[in-house]
Amino acid sequence: MDVFEAINTQRSMRRLKPDPVPDELVWRLLDAAIRAPNGGNRQPWNFLVIRDPETKKRIAEHYLDGWNNSYGRLREVALASEATAPVYRSGEYLAQHLAEVPLLIMATCRLSAVAPVSPAGASVYPAVQNLMLAARALGLGTCLTTIHRAHEAEVKQLLGIPDDVETMALIPVGWPRGKFGAGARLPAERVVYWEKWGDIRAR
Amino acid sequence: MDVFEAINTQRSMRRLKPDPVPDELVWRLLDAAIRAPNGGNRQPWNFLVIRDPETKKRIAEHYLDGWNNSYGRLREVALASEATAPVYRSGEYLAQHLAEVPLLIMATCRLSAVAPVSPAGASVYPAVQNLMLAARALGLGTCLTTIHRAHEAEVKQLLGIPDDVETMALIPVGWPRGKFGAGARLPAERVVYWEKWGDIRAR
Repeated sequence: MDVFEAINTQRSMRRLKPDPVPDELVWRLLDAAIRAPNGGNRQPWNFLVIRDPETKKRIAEHYLDGWNNSYGRLREVALASEATAPVYRSGEYLAQHLAEVPLLIMATCRLSAVAPVSPAGASVYPAVQNLMLAARALGLGTCLTTIHRAHEAEVKQLLGIPDDVETMALIPVGWPRGKFGAGARLPAERVVYWEKWGDIRAR
Repeated sequence: MDVFEAINTQRSMRRLKPDPVPDELVWRLLDAAIRAPNGGNRQPWNFLVIRDPETKKRIAEHYLDGWNNSYGRLREVALASEATAPVYRSGEYLAQHLAEVPLLIMATCRLSAVAPVSPAGASVYPAVQNLMLAARALGLGTCLTTIHRAHEAEVKQLLGIPDDVETMALIPVGWPRGKFGAGARLPAERVVYWEKWGDIRAR
């Protein structure tokens, strides 16, 4: 698949079928992830592949609690607006069905391998995006979530993640129930400034 | 270009020609960037396109100082090893020639638009990676740098960036002097764990 097509149709897919994802495809996602740029080529990333039902169930409990605590109180307002209702419903669906997703990938960062002025994410999220674009090209749905971090300590303990390692993203992976396409975005003209902050330019 | 080819050949390109990059291509990079996933679709990103020679010169001074302070003391050790010498020389070249790069793109994040448990980078670096993959497909070299952040306050003042906005990445963009290809990476088997931290698996 053309790189621009993958980029332009990589909608976040939060409604996923429980059907398994073969190892061969999992390796293709991971092979794409580890090609990403990262600070000083220290590759501070690790990726945990999680399929065990009990582990997924416990992560899903932490995730749902995180969702309820952060997004729960926004429910009425979000559902009242046509602009936000579909995304909210989709997020809520994922929070309620995370344990049914066939495959969770947890991307982590070894903090000791990151330079002081660099945010840890600069050396992990490009890899996560590679993984998600590769998934899109293979027909697999993904989204980038961080809501489990509301229970970072418990999730790290569950997975045996050492103290010096931070969880950066939880990526549900599965065959999508819906169709790929473009998410709603402000056009580049609205968010790009030329030479100085605030100076917009027509195309 | 196929998405896997773009991913597999997106080497960081730090030796760039001074030849200009047409606006049409700049828009294609930015159009790719703004398609990226981001937390709650709040799109906390902005992108500053910088070509003004005086602005580039001043950013380059901050960047070189940041380089000297962080990587300067590693010079002898880095150049003594065949594994690290090429990357070091390439980083040093960029630090000494940043003002000659035709185009700098600064990716920023409005911190008020990011959920508390989510690292700001989760909503900006996927866009940065989209931009860099689009550049690769168009034959433009890029790399993701954060060294200017050693002088974050001065750089923000120079560009007129508000208090609530953080600079996340400085992306030099230009026609490469060298060839695209794969950077050296540990294979996925070495960094992927299955079910529990530390549990590796053969392919």
